Amino acid sequence: MSGAIAFSTPKADILARRSEIISDLQAILPKDALIHEGRELVPFETDGFIAYTRLPLAVCLPETTQQVAKVLSYCHENGIPVVPRGAGTSLSGGAIGQEDAIILGLSRMNRILDIDLPNRAATVQAGVTNIAISEAVKPEGFFYAPDPSSQLACTIGGNIGMNSGGAHCLKYGVTTNNLLGVKMVLIDGTVIDLGGKALDSAGYDLMALVCGSEGQLGIITEATVRLLASPEGARPVLFGFPTSEQAGACVTDIIASGIIPVAIEFMDKPAIEICEAFAKAGYPLDAGALLIIEVEGSEDEMEAMLAEIVAIAERHGVMAIRRSQSATEAALIWKGRKSAFGATGRIADYICMDGTVPLSQLSYVLQKTSEITDRYGLRVANVFHAGDGNMHPLILYNINDPEDAARAEEAGAEILKLCVDAGGCLTGEHGVGIEKRDLMRHQYSDADLRQQMAVRAAFDPDWMLNPSKVFPLEGRDD
Amino acid sequence: MSGAIAFSTPKADILARRSEIISDLQAILPKDALIHEGRELVPFETDGFIAYTRLPLAVCLPETTQQVAKVLSYCHENGIPVVPRGAGTSLSGGAIGQEDAIILGLSRMNRILDIDLPNRAATVQAGVTNIAISEAVKPEGFFYAPDPSSQLACTIGGNIGMNSGGAHCLKYGVTTNNLLGVKMVLIDGTVIDLGGKALDSAGYDLMALVCGSEGQLGIITEATVRLLASPEGARPVLFGFPTSEQAGACVTDIIASGIIPVAIEFMDKPAIEICEAFAKAGYPLDAGALLIIEVEGSEDEMEAMLAEIVAIAERHGVMAIRRSQSATEAALIWKGRKSAFGATGRIADYICMDGTVPLSQLSYVLQKTSEITDRYGLRVANVFHAGDGNMHPLILYNINDPEDAARAEEAGAEILKLCVDAGGCLTGEHGVGIEKRDLMRHQYSDADLRQQMAVRAAFDPDWMLNPSKVFPLEGRDD
Repeated sequence: MSGAIAFSTPKADILARRSEIISDLQAILPKDALIHEGRELVPFETDGFIAYTRLPLAVCLPETTQQVAKVLSYCHENGIPVVPRGAGTSLSGGAIGQEDAIILGLSRMNRILDIDLPNRAATVQAGVTNIAISEAVKPEGFFYAPDPSSQLACTIGGNIGMNSGGAHCLKYGVTTNNLLGVKMVLIDGTVIDLGGKALDSAGYDLMALVCGSEGQLGIITEATVRLLASPEGARPVLFGFPTSEQAGACVTDIIASGIIPVAIEFMDKPAIEICEAFAKAGYPLDAGALLIIEVEGSEDEMEAMLAEIVAIAERHGVMAIRRSQSATEAALIWKGRKSAFGATGRIADYICMDGTVPLSQLSYVLQKTSEITDRYGLRVANVFHAGDGNMHPLILYNINDPEDAARAEEAGAEILKLCVDAGGCLTGEHGVGIEKRDLMRHQYSDADLRQQMAVRAAFDPDWMLNPSKVFPLEGRDD
Repeated sequence: MSGAIAFSTPKADILARRSEIISDLQAILPKDALIHEGRELVPFETDGFIAYTRLPLAVCLPETTQQVAKVLSYCHENGIPVVPRGAGTSLSGGAIGQEDAIILGLSRMNRILDIDLPNRAATVQAGVTNIAISEAVKPEGFFYAPDPSSQLACTIGGNIGMNSGGAHCLKYGVTTNNLLGVKMVLIDGTVIDLGGKALDSAGYDLMALVCGSEGQLGIITEATVRLLASPEGARPVLFGFPTSEQAGACVTDIIASGIIPVAIEFMDKPAIEICEAFAKAGYPLDAGALLIIEVEGSEDEMEAMLAEIVAIAERHGVMAIRRSQSATEAALIWKGRKSAFGATGRIADYICMDGTVPLSQLSYVLQKTSEITDRYGLRVANVFHAGDGNMHPLILYNINDPEDAARAEEAGAEILKLCVDAGGCLTGEHGVGIEKRDLMRHQYSDADLRQQMAVRAAFDPDWMLNPSKVFPLEGRDD
């Protein structure tokens, strides 16, 4: 990439004390829980936002909340920045470290601690993968709702840090709507518990604040999440439209009518072609845009909701409707959608934007997005959670051509500003990270940002936790 | 009451400057927007938590966000505490002021600013009543979900301050789940906007933090809330059980099975008698406990869900099932439930507790509650949102008998501690206010409270906003 996004300058005093810090951390942690040799650090030099790489000072892989507390307490006393990391699937650079920072990896804290079906709750360590929770309770007929595309790999701790969403969040909400409690270690090593299995909480809702705070307020080591009963049945249906504008207008009308399907996913022509070539899911290649709409419930409920949706789609010129005829076919439809990023990666480098807009602006923003990428001479594929207004334009470019990379980054920034100007926001589920840090000024006034930073300082006054992320580097109080 | 709950001592310097402060505020506000004469202040001396009364220094009734900003800025510069107030329906004393504080009443900011059906959102001023939002969008087939019993009077600003719930929150969530954005004035007069019509927000979720913060972080002047489509049909059904334990166990099993009705309300024998005498709703007087379970959807959906619920109720010895046969009858069933507090007030003074427990603890906590009130020689009526585990024991006593009042207060505190010890929390929807302030130490560790107070200080470092509430008076940083 062009390098337009800067990291903060590593602190010389920390770099000078590197070996001392490593041996101190080795003394705190179990054997094999500290990675510090150059070659072994390479897997940690970037995350899902592969455009930037930085090697950390070391990687700590604690196994208990107490070990996390000891590491934080040590780093706090010694002024060493700490970057938390789950599976490293962040698309905004949230888990990338730098030379004067340690990465605190939670991957070894991967035990499911308690499944409490009477209270529809599961308590898990932060490094448990998203899918593992649903798999553990599936035999009993339950599931955990948020389902990011990376759910096979990404961890619940990372999901909380980014307030992750997914295709099925239209009906079930994002992480914050499905989280009951967390255990969190503060920068000085204090362990606090937020939320719990009961509704609401007395005092301030710090749990909601922590959800989406990108690891800057504390390190989450355990989470209690809500379990939902699996629906009687679920069925994705494909709707092909001549144009993106028609598909977008159809989504707007479905939501405005008050119908809430489980999922409404959108693909434009380039996305259909890319995903179909990879997954052979039977997507209609002659359509200008495609909606995957999933309904659930009993056979009667699904049919009743589908009838309403079909009537709306017909008003918007739908050209093809294809119901999945079997569980295999349904799984294939979702496989095509969930592999969109991987499939795109096979044909080009790309950056994935994550703007969110009010539903009524969907068609307008899609059209303007095309105009922007056309102007930069770039290709774009749109594949996203349309029911939430959560757009994911994938801007294709060549990572080895610095000029092309710079153009992609500029076009991406312009698209995100467009989302904000249309009444939306910079991120739906991928977080701000380093990627959108400087765009925060476009979304927020100085007073807004000052207040957010004051809240941050109430947890971490010295900006030790994931310091280069979320807020513009310039104009910070420190 | 016994006066066990103390207010902070009024600051002498503010009392000495009273007339100067009044004339300064008169200069800031429109004519008739300042109440300061003794007799006219009386309606503001208490709120729904009538056990305590304190006259404020004055009451400001601004009409615009700008006027709110001017008042806050003035109070900030002059060290005058500010207590926000909507309709004054707080059941925990959240809107009670004191002699050195002004009350900032939002009741004149009662305009609906925008109804945006395509985005299923309404923007209203903070003083708009809860019911007014649903009434404004009812002709279009929409509603605003949270429905506190006080919904005819209480305001959306107060609902946000207390994160209010209501009978139908089992399915639709409490205020925080239905709030999209707020405009808020900080203590120094700065106006900030949090959230918006798009999903999620970049940076920290300060809106979620503000929801339930009891007016201590800023004064909300406008709110954007989510509108939902009215269901095709809705039907409350009465289930009579021989005992409270059986009714409680039935609720636990319904929720554990994964079924989520719109509402599951619980009444024990004393509550049934009190409400039936008032509302003549046809409640079964021979039952030891009653559940009102509401289902909604199409006729088929309602029947399918009811069949599952009936099967579970039969396993718990249900003795009577009565379906409402008409809209009038359905309305009467709800009228009986929603007038429970008023009906109780006709026969005795009472304090209403608001503990929340994990569903699996419901029967245990009901039984222990009886044991506690028996031990104090007090009568109790239980009428509450059982599906959420949000209990409302009404402890009956004589307000003119100080010993009886002290007993009621002690019994109430013991019940709330019981809820916390059972894995629950001090409040489901009424807030901490002054009532539960000292019990916060039972729920939270020192580290937890210190972190909450640090967040408060990031908004209001001098503790000017609603200062006597939420946190124990002893051990504050100030």
